[in-house]
Formats: sequence, structure tokens, C-alpha cells
Amino acid sequence: MGASQEMAAFWVLCCALFTAVSSYSVLDEKLLFQRSLAEIARVKSTTDHIIDFTVNGKGQNQTYKRLAEFVDKFGSRLTGSQNLENAIDYMLNTLRSDGLENVHGEPVTVPHWVRGEESAELLQPRSHPLAILGLGYSVGTPPEGITAQVLVVRSFDELKARASEAKGKIVVYNEDFVSYGTTVAYRSNGAAEGAKVGAVATLIRSVTPYSIYSPHTGMQDYQDGVPKIPTACITIEDAQMLWRMSQRGEKIVIKLTMGAKNLPPAQSRNTVAEIIGHKYPEQVVLVSGHLDSWDVGQGAMDDGGGAFISWQALSIIRQLGLRPKRTMRAVLWTGEEMGIIGGQSYWERHKGNITNFDLVMESDIGTFTPLGIDFTGNDQATKIMKHLVGTLLTSVNASKLSSPAEVSDVPWWIENGVPGGSLINANQDYFFYHHSNGDMMTVEDAHTLDLCSAVWAVVSYAVADMEDMLPR
Amino acid sequence: MGASQEMAAFWVLCCALFTAVSSYSVLDEKLLFQRSLAEIARVKSTTDHIIDFTVNGKGQNQTYKRLAEFVDKFGSRLTGSQNLENAIDYMLNTLRSDGLENVHGEPVTVPHWVRGEESAELLQPRSHPLAILGLGYSVGTPPEGITAQVLVVRSFDELKARASEAKGKIVVYNEDFVSYGTTVAYRSNGAAEGAKVGAVATLIRSVTPYSIYSPHTGMQDYQDGVPKIPTACITIEDAQMLWRMSQRGEKIVIKLTMGAKNLPPAQSRNTVAEIIGHKYPEQVVLVSGHLDSWDVGQGAMDDGGGAFISWQALSIIRQLGLRPKRTMRAVLWTGEEMGIIGGQSYWERHKGNITNFDLVMESDIGTFTPLGIDFTGNDQATKIMKHLVGTLLTSVNASKLSSPAEVSDVPWWIENGVPGGSLINANQDYFFYHHSNGDMMTVEDAHTLDLCSAVWAVVSYAVADMEDMLPR
Repeated sequence: MGASQEMAAFWVLCCALFTAVSSYSVLDEKLLFQRSLAEIARVKSTTDHIIDFTVNGKGQNQTYKRLAEFVDKFGSRLTGSQNLENAIDYMLNTLRSDGLENVHGEPVTVPHWVRGEESAELLQPRSHPLAILGLGYSVGTPPEGITAQVLVVRSFDELKARASEAKGKIVVYNEDFVSYGTTVAYRSNGAAEGAKVGAVATLIRSVTPYSIYSPHTGMQDYQDGVPKIPTACITIEDAQMLWRMSQRGEKIVIKLTMGAKNLPPAQSRNTVAEIIGHKYPEQVVLVSGHLDSWDVGQGAMDDGGGAFISWQALSIIRQLGLRPKRTMRAVLWTGEEMGIIGGQSYWERHKGNITNFDLVMESDIGTFTPLGIDFTGNDQATKIMKHLVGTLLTSVNASKLSSPAEVSDVPWWIENGVPGGSLINANQDYFFYHHSNGDMMTVEDAHTLDLCSAVWAVVSYAVADMEDMLPR
Repeated sequence: MGASQEMAAFWVLCCALFTAVSSYSVLDEKLLFQRSLAEIARVKSTTDHIIDFTVNGKGQNQTYKRLAEFVDKFGSRLTGSQNLENAIDYMLNTLRSDGLENVHGEPVTVPHWVRGEESAELLQPRSHPLAILGLGYSVGTPPEGITAQVLVVRSFDELKARASEAKGKIVVYNEDFVSYGTTVAYRSNGAAEGAKVGAVATLIRSVTPYSIYSPHTGMQDYQDGVPKIPTACITIEDAQMLWRMSQRGEKIVIKLTMGAKNLPPAQSRNTVAEIIGHKYPEQVVLVSGHLDSWDVGQGAMDDGGGAFISWQALSIIRQLGLRPKRTMRAVLWTGEEMGIIGGQSYWERHKGNITNFDLVMESDIGTFTPLGIDFTGNDQATKIMKHLVGTLLTSVNASKLSSPAEVSDVPWWIENGVPGGSLINANQDYFFYHHSNGDMMTVEDAHTLDLCSAVWAVVSYAVADMEDMLPR
């Protein structure tokens, strides 16, 4: 090699070094992504086996069978009730019997609202029993009920415009269903807004796009300094009838009787089970759903399905004798329906350990036919997850990745940078059953639950078994 | 003209005469059909006007508005109840005020079954209230109810095979929904078949393909010489839950309390109104639906819609100042739900006049988007009707004609040769609401009802205004 050649070689080396240093982070990202692709390719034969076991093998129908046994045994599981605590005890025992690790309950203080006896009757212009469901945290009526004339409005704007007519009346909201997110404002704030203009009670059209005379319950929020008045949901059918009567100028009188009570707080538990990671046991991939439900129906869909595919994700891994690098943790929340009580308590208790949370997943919007994962994370994490679901979930037609993750129990983790995921599923009928007596096992399907469990197990196992945590 | 030409002309004449005589009936048919085509062409501008008036003009939303006023005012209208008689009085007054002719009630003796208070509760393996609806003609339980162990079966065959297990038990049928016509056998005969093997009561899965925890009622038939035991429908959801429990070998105990009673027969009326024909007033085109309903919901769909499009068919003709050649008659039946009582009474009263009944139409399978007419008649009448709906109802997309007519109140007329018609409509969800609390105005749609009324008015007017009665 001559001097000029040495000089040229030196320059090439300098240029390469300069390029390497100046684009260090780009290179790092690329390396990490390449390594992730390799990891995903590596794990595919295992996740294919997970899918086969769950959908066609010994795991077939297991989620449905386990969920049906649970909801048939306990029925609804209202926050604060002894029945929920019995259901949690059952789950703790069952998770232990299933061979999961570190099974325990984490104490949570929860509100204790009870419905009591409740009824409503149209007295004028004619006698007609109205199906109602009182709303969470509502106060009751006096034992003799409240009998009052009715003002029917279609919106908060109309209520404001007709505020002078509301005093001493039962305000009925016949709001149209736009979307759950939009329309739920009437259920949440209907009582407070009614009380501000002097209403003695409020009845809200159930927040659902479809009804077979089905009332739906849910939480509502009183406001500080505003009188607490009794509030309940009625059916779409009755709300529309009352509205037609009011449009005809008929005098409408309703008698509402509600035995609802807010009792002192009670003790409950988040239910936790793990498969401890063999290489990074302190790092966690979390899958979750809530065990509590409303006190109507069986809470099979909301959120029995979400809780049980979270158990099943770990159960499948255990049954297959697998153990990923980091810890898979199932958390079955308590107190979700009364205000995300369990989820918030968990955040407060564990947020100090946030750097070890690799991915938080939650299923609480149905376990109908799965289509993929809704994900929140930075661009790099999103790219990895897109590749992961596209590679590993094609055989179950659940290879879609979109954003953001739709969660209720784990938002704090995601807001603070932990990648989060939720289950995209064909849940267009979800609100037909949501918070109603229709939320029973009939809504669930054994094969569909297998598919959901497979998706949940594959995503959580694959991420837990990658060498690197997801970038954040 | 020469002799040979005259001979030839004579032969031609002879041949023509022979042909004419030998195919007299064919010619007659052809003439009649040609004349019918001409009549249909003649009436088209009038029926186009009827459609325009009903769908876009002054008649717009009228059927919905009238039906809503009626069902909101009276609610459900059970056979034998004072409420049904009040509703009939209201209709008689309203039909008169509407300018219809010969408005009157025709007395019918009807059965008088009352539901009374009713409830069911699962006591074992856990406490759970069961939504029930007692079935028509069911006897009640003793005041303290019947508490018994449960046998769940999926079919009559299974009940027979397990007859030895049924004695002293409440038999629950968890039959799959195949079609209404097939599956209704469980509701109709469930009690009798249960009693034959010693059951003390029967609970039947509601006869519907879809449920949001919705029980459905309906008639059932006891059998001579078989003990009458209390019988009610439960929801799909509960029937499936009880079946799952039984499959697990769990002991199931239910307490059933029913205050149902069969009271002495009552007096009711078929409600009749006419537009009297200007040329053949004794000849009748009949349109009909039933005014009575089950005692749940509002009977808006079953059969408020059918009854009110039948009123509306005449009302539109009256409002437009039209009068066809023969009489248009609306009959609003009573007692349909308790066994076609009004329809049968009408047949017995008027069958002597059968030759004057040109066409009998009935709407009792929904007033959803109309698609055409189901028709029963001979080939010639079918050909004419096919041309009629194809020519006159294309603008409302209801030009389909198929067979047979689907009727419940007028089968005797059709069996005895009178052409019959029913409304084909997009009623795939009909049984979601049928005989349940979901049968309220929310099921009905103003524009769809306009379309149904237009179809009903056009067909009945056009047939009533043709020179010839439909061939039979």
C-alpha cells in the first residue's frame, strides 16, 4: 500500500467514523428495529403453536367454558358487594390451581353504592310502568317516592332555554344517540344539570343506539354545591313516548321511587397473577380486564371477556410450558365501573416502578371477533408492533395495528410513556348490551373468545420474550 | 266474386266460427285479462296521485302520527280488557270523524285471560331473578307459588327420553330458534307435553332469534284430559344459563309465582268502516289488521301498523275525494292474539255473502319497508295482480308479487276461493319485538308507514275500481 493509498484509506475511515457518530441514534434505532424483526421471526413458530393450541387444540373453548362457569356461579359483581369479594376469592383460588405464579390480591378501598328497590310509573296522561335502572352514586327518593310533573327536553341547550319550566319537575332527557363518548354526557351530568334549574329528579334515555325495551345503567357525577337529586335511565322507547306526549301538549306525571344508597367505603382487591420472566423477571408485560361489573346482567361482556382472556393469555403459556424472558402479569381490576378505582389504586401503588413496565394492555371494549391491536407508543415502538401483529397474527385475521389504545384502567401508564395496547374487535353491537340485563353469556361466543385469547397471548408473550423492551 | 270464391269465403267463416266456439273460455280469459290491463292502465294516473299524496303530500307522516296518538293513548290492548273496548270506541269515533261510511262495531264474544302479578326466581344454585311473561290461557300458581327442582331439555324428544326425571319438576325448554312457525310449537304445546310426564310447571325459552334479555309472551294450548299447569316464557339468556347449569350437573331450583286467571268471556267488537262503491256497492275489497294486542309493549307493530294502514287506505281515498266502483271495507279485528276470535266470528257472520268478496287483504306481519304483495288466487287472478303491482307500485319499489298470502284473520275466505293478499315487507327483525315489551312506536318509521299505506291504498283501490271482480 503506497502513501497516497494510505491517505485515501485514512479519509475513508474518517468519513465512516464521522457518519457513525453523527447518526448514532439513527443507527441505534435501525439496529434495534432489525433486532426486533429477528426476534419476531424467531418467536413465530412458538406463537403459531400458541394459536393452534388455543383455537384448535386442547385450549379450544376453554375461555368460554371458564368464563361461563364464573359468571353463571356469581352473576353480576357490583363494586363494594360481598358477591364481588367472593368472586375475587374464587379467582385467586382458580388462578393458583391453574399453576400461575405470585397469585395475590392487592387491597383497594372502593365505594359502596347499592341500588335497592326501584320503580317508576307514568300516572298521567295514562298509567304505564316505566322500566328504569338507577345510576351509580344516585341518591334515593323518600320511601313514598317523588311524584311530579315532567319536562321532556332533547338536549342540555333546550334545558337551559326552558330553565324556567324545570322547577319542581322531573326532567326527562330524550337525547339522540350520537356516539357513546358524546351521548354519555347526559347520563354523567344529567342530574347535576337538572338540579341547577330546580328539577327534583332526572330520567335519562339510555345511552345505546338500539333497544328492545332495555334500560342501561352506568355512573353519574354530582357536582359540588349542586343538590343531589335521584337519577335513573329509562328505555329509548319510553323516552320517545314521553317526548311525543309532551309535543302534544299533554300533562305528564311520573312517580319515581328509588331505594338507592351510598354506604361507607368497602374493601376490595385487584387480582394479580404472573408467569415470572426467566431473564428479566423485574420487567413486566401487563394484560388486564376488570372483574367487577354492574349489578344487572352477568357482566359477561363488560368485562368478564376482557378479564378472562387476560387470565387465558397466561394460562395458555403455562399450559404449553413456556416462559418468556420477562414477566407476564395479569391484573383483574376491581371497582372499574364506579370510577376506575382499582386501576388508579394500582397506578399509585406501582408507578415508582414505571421503568420496568414494558407494555400495558387492557381489554374492556368487547371480546367479539378480534381484528388486531390499538396501540399507543412512539414511532419506533409502533413500527415494531406493526411488524409484530402483521407477522404473528395473520393466521387469525387480526393483523391490524392502529392508534391510539382505548383503555380505561391503565391511562396513567400510557400518559407517562409506557406503550399501551387494547383489543380491536368487531364490537359494533357492544352498546346494545353494555350496562344492561342483556350483558349475559349469550353475547359471547366460544370460538371468538378463543381467537381473542390467542391474540392476547401471542402479543403479550412475543413482547415479553423479546430481548429489548419496547422503545419509549 | 265467383262461386269458388264464395265457397272459399264460406269455409273461412265456418272455420272461424268453429275456432271461436271451441276456444270460448280461452278467449273469455284473454278478453278479461286484456280488459284488466286496460283498467290498470286507466287507473294509473289516479294511483300515482294516491302515492304522491301519501308519501310526499298532505298524507305524509299521517299514518305514523295517527298510530302514535293511538298507541300512546291506550298502550297495550289485551282481548277482554276494558282498555281494548275503550280503544275500539275511540276508533269508531275517529273513523266517523274521518268521514268514512257505515262505521260500526260487530259484536264478538271473546275470552278474557288476565296475567296478574307474576315473577320467577332462581333459588339454586344461586339467587337470580328470572324475567318471565306468562302465556295466554295459562292457569296461575297457588298464591305462595310453586317451588320445584328443574329439568332442562332442548327438545320434546329429549323430554320423552327423560320422562322419568320430569315428575314433580318445573320443565325448562331451551329449544333453539329455527323459525317462528317451527319453534312456536314449544310455546304452544310446552305445558301440555310437560304435564303429560308429570311436570308441575313449564318455562319456555322465548320464541325469537335475538334477545336483549327480552321475554316474549303468546298463546298456548292445553289439551283435553291433560292437567293444566302454569306456563311462561323466559329469556334466551336465562334458558341458556339454566341449560349450562344443568349440563354441569348442578341442582337447579326455581320458584314460580303467577296470578294468571281465565275469567268469564267478555264482549268485544270487530271495527268496520267503508267507502261504499258507486257501481257495485254490494261487492267488497277488504283490508284489515287487528286492534287487539298482547298486554306488553304498545302493540304498535303487532298489529297497530297493520290496522292503521288499513284505516289509512280508506282515509287516503276519502281525503282525495275518490270513490271506486265497488266498496272498500276496513275491518280492524278483535281477539286475534287469543285465537283469531274476531276473524272467525266475521267469517261465520258473513260467509253467506262470499260471492261478493272480491279480495281479502290482511297486514299482520309488520309494516317495515314494503316490497310488494303476497297473493293467493287462481292463475288468471295471479296474472292480473302481477301486472297490477308491476305497473302501479314500481315507483315505491313494491312491485313484487309472490305466493301464497300470509294471513291469520282471513284464511277461511281464501280457503273457499276468495283471492287473498298480504303485505311483503322487510320484516326480518319482526320477531325481535313480537309479543314483547319492545313492541312500541320506536319500531315504526314514519316514511316506511307512508309507503305501506300507499301500497295498501293503491292495491285495494285499483282492484275495487276494476270493472270485473278478480277471477276465482
